[in-house]
Amino acid sequence: MKSDVEIAQAAQMNPIVEVARELEIPAEELELYGNYKAKVALKTWERIKNRPDGKLILVSAINPTPAGEGKTTTTVGLGDSLRRKGKKVVIALREPSLGPCFGVKGGAAGGGYSQVVPMEDINLHFTGDFHAITTAHNLLAAIIDNHLHHGNALGIDPRRITWRRVLDLNERALRNVVCGLGGKANGVPRETGFDITVASEMMAILCLAKDLDDMKERIGRIIVAYTYAGKPVTPEDLKVTGALALLFKDAIKPNLVQTLENTPAFVHGGPFANIAHGCNSVSATKYALKLADYCVTEAGFGADLGAEKFIDIKCRFAGFKPSVVVIVATVRALKMHGGVPKNELAGENMGALEKGLANLTKHIENIQQFGLPAVVAINAFPTDTAQELSFVEEQCNKLGAEVALSEVWAKGSLGGQVLAEKVLAACERPNEFTFAYDETAPIKDKISAIATKIYGAYGVNYTPAAEKTIQELTALGFDKTPICMAKTQYSLSDDMNKAGRPTGFSITVREVRVAAGAGFLVAITGEIMTMPGLPKEPSAVKMDIDNDGKIVGLF
Amino acid sequence: MKSDVEIAQAAQMNPIVEVARELEIPAEELELYGNYKAKVALKTWERIKNRPDGKLILVSAINPTPAGEGKTTTTVGLGDSLRRKGKKVVIALREPSLGPCFGVKGGAAGGGYSQVVPMEDINLHFTGDFHAITTAHNLLAAIIDNHLHHGNALGIDPRRITWRRVLDLNERALRNVVCGLGGKANGVPRETGFDITVASEMMAILCLAKDLDDMKERIGRIIVAYTYAGKPVTPEDLKVTGALALLFKDAIKPNLVQTLENTPAFVHGGPFANIAHGCNSVSATKYALKLADYCVTEAGFGADLGAEKFIDIKCRFAGFKPSVVVIVATVRALKMHGGVPKNELAGENMGALEKGLANLTKHIENIQQFGLPAVVAINAFPTDTAQELSFVEEQCNKLGAEVALSEVWAKGSLGGQVLAEKVLAACERPNEFTFAYDETAPIKDKISAIATKIYGAYGVNYTPAAEKTIQELTALGFDKTPICMAKTQYSLSDDMNKAGRPTGFSITVREVRVAAGAGFLVAITGEIMTMPGLPKEPSAVKMDIDNDGKIVGLF
Repeated sequence: MKSDVEIAQAAQMNPIVEVARELEIPAEELELYGNYKAKVALKTWERIKNRPDGKLILVSAINPTPAGEGKTTTTVGLGDSLRRKGKKVVIALREPSLGPCFGVKGGAAGGGYSQVVPMEDINLHFTGDFHAITTAHNLLAAIIDNHLHHGNALGIDPRRITWRRVLDLNERALRNVVCGLGGKANGVPRETGFDITVASEMMAILCLAKDLDDMKERIGRIIVAYTYAGKPVTPEDLKVTGALALLFKDAIKPNLVQTLENTPAFVHGGPFANIAHGCNSVSATKYALKLADYCVTEAGFGADLGAEKFIDIKCRFAGFKPSVVVIVATVRALKMHGGVPKNELAGENMGALEKGLANLTKHIENIQQFGLPAVVAINAFPTDTAQELSFVEEQCNKLGAEVALSEVWAKGSLGGQVLAEKVLAACERPNEFTFAYDETAPIKDKISAIATKIYGAYGVNYTPAAEKTIQELTALGFDKTPICMAKTQYSLSDDMNKAGRPTGFSITVREVRVAAGAGFLVAITGEIMTMPGLPKEPSAVKMDIDNDGKIVGLF
Repeated sequence: MKSDVEIAQAAQMNPIVEVARELEIPAEELELYGNYKAKVALKTWERIKNRPDGKLILVSAINPTPAGEGKTTTTVGLGDSLRRKGKKVVIALREPSLGPCFGVKGGAAGGGYSQVVPMEDINLHFTGDFHAITTAHNLLAAIIDNHLHHGNALGIDPRRITWRRVLDLNERALRNVVCGLGGKANGVPRETGFDITVASEMMAILCLAKDLDDMKERIGRIIVAYTYAGKPVTPEDLKVTGALALLFKDAIKPNLVQTLENTPAFVHGGPFANIAHGCNSVSATKYALKLADYCVTEAGFGADLGAEKFIDIKCRFAGFKPSVVVIVATVRALKMHGGVPKNELAGENMGALEKGLANLTKHIENIQQFGLPAVVAINAFPTDTAQELSFVEEQCNKLGAEVALSEVWAKGSLGGQVLAEKVLAACERPNEFTFAYDETAPIKDKISAIATKIYGAYGVNYTPAAEKTIQELTALGFDKTPICMAKTQYSLSDDMNKAGRPTGFSITVREVRVAAGAGFLVAITGEIMTMPGLPKEPSAVKMDIDNDGKIVGLF
């Protein structure tokens, strides 16, 4: 059996100018990055903006388990499958982060015969968008500390600098640092720390901005600190909005690549869904909706995080109306949600499956709460039994959700024809799309709506620090925005150990951060951290490249 | 008068495939980054490696002053001037760092009518090489702290981790930090800090490696820490050599761009010359020597730093033999070396000029010590008087150095025809190229040779810490390598306030670092720091970009 990187490196890619031609994008609207990657010019938007939108198909999933669900694989495979049926399709994905790539995942560009390529480039530096974000974020941090060092004319309170630093790595040891040590020549000592780049507000802004002017406005509004008098300090006050925007002059343009079957795919922006809003860029999705009849996109982790934020943040801001949500599950993962350990998943276990299915059930109900049809994609494994599969189908059908077995990992588009048919049918059904909350409601009401309606909690607790921040932000007028929940992806609750469909739990909000540039508040729950750590044996130790460019260890 | 970025954005660039065609590089050996930037494939080397080398022309300078010298401008202008004379030319420059770009310099791609373009891309993220270095460097740091966190099987002494972290920014407040704070889940507390990316050993390795295999070998040998037993720890021990090399799969390929006059230019690698070895990559220079009859390259800052390391490190490792060294000076800067403050440089001042000329004189003598002909390029300013210019010419001629007035900033290649003629003549003269020291000599003998012969010091002092490290490194067998001096660029001495040609001084080595992967030792002198700070008003505050891509503040 071939590895993902072997399959990818053997791909018959078309030159990206040909892929673009399928979308009627002329070569002069492309900025090539090699022969197989391109950025699409901002002027393309002027040419296409008055077209009608295609159908928007969101791929989400159950809460992830170590057994793996294959959300990106299914997204890519569904796109290929729709194209095989003669539909005009564009896929819209997030860019992978180097943190999990070198940590646990080893790559994030799909798998098997449903991948976006060149996967080794997409997984590594790609077109440099994340590096631009890291640089802009850290330049802003440097400017703040430089301001303190050179006399602090704005009166910034060093204890109230909320802008941290970022790296696109898993870096536990940098979560909390003291900087400015070593005496007068070396800055002002204070506590700070690093988050992963995908959690940066700059990432959210890149993903939500309409154009460079909008991006500049948003950057200018970021709250980086408070003065001793309690007044927010922004990049505008520090006079660096222009310099920061300049660093994004290329990053703002969507990246075009292709699947193993040459279906066009935008891969642009990449916030995580547990600690950020979890969706690819609004601009790439906008382009995709104008360029094709079907845009297949994904949002990160489970539907409680990714789909909720896709709807309540991305769709709300951009005015998108999805047609259908695909929920990816595997029989193995459902059995894990039912309490089976990873090394005992091979055998049939109807009891565990029934118990674990409650997780999928809740996600179906949630999608229906949003007024959208749900189609369940069962990502097939050789160990699945006929009885297990038909039980899942029966239970989902009872809830009004269609189910399709997806074999795109092993067979590419040939393995996704049934799924494609069911998705196409669902797209034709009228829906009553709605949000989980009214964005003008008080902060706690919005958090409560998400926690009770989507997570199934009975209520929300707030730490004193979170209470205080909510009062302050309300007083400052930052309460009329959507909420971006930061929560473990492994559970519907804020406790990663509660699998299945937990009940009788409350959510604890321990910190609230304002992302005034992005336009939302981040509510941090439970133990979730904005900088991951590396495992004892990171994926990095398996990676290699030889002088001829042959790569191992990416998958 | 137009700004540099206005001139650059109005440039008539040729598509980079046409620029490559002038060098007989076929399009299939290019990886395009947009229409005007490309990486040249590693296979090109296989095709050209048996050709004879062209002539190697190094452009260096006097010690820089706030008045500006224009070394890169002269390098670009000389390349254009030689091409106007019908010569086959490639320019080889370093990539600019974002640190000084947002700090003081605002860009580093030449100036006026002698620039490499697209200057806004070259000055910002370019093809991502520096971001690859930053990422690889910091991944290695993360792996070390992760190793400590997960039980420290290798027995690394947390007090003896020599591998710091890097950012491509000026970041005073990160020079010294304590990381790993916040309790058991957040790593092991210890002292560390950040250097600027251009000072990273990864940067030196990228610039010195012959190919990916050589790069891997060098990365594998880096000493990142010592165990409690005093044994060096390397990436090989941590099993991440392959992952680190993988991050360089594109960065290792030279970047091709062009000048405003369409002369081909490699811009690849970019260590600073004060804290690192200061030269563009060996691979770009190798390509240039095979592809053209003349390669015009530069080394950073003054000839005491850049030219010395170009010769003693880069030429030694790569087997290059330069034909001539151009020393760039301005009358204004010479007057500053003679004691005139920046705001009084407009008037003629023969006394100050004579005094300051001693700085240029020493650099001419140094080039002659290396057995090479020196050509002085006086970068013309409107305030220069005829008497000042002829005095400089007379004095240089007395030392056997040719002099040419260079007006390439204002006139492009038309302003560099005399300089080109003198350089071509010097290239035809046989030379007796030699190094400043024997690399197998004891460490202190090598440092002493540089300090006395090149800087004009009477001797070298060592701090107890430096003495101890020298003993340890000698015992470990790391003494048979060249020395990379880290020293202020503003003076021939290690005191930045000593302008002109100081005498009666000694050099103080306060720290010695081993760069076992790069293959040299770094001797850190005086107050020089491996992480710069931002000034009170950074260049960043003047930068902006509008929705149509018009940029201000880069120059």
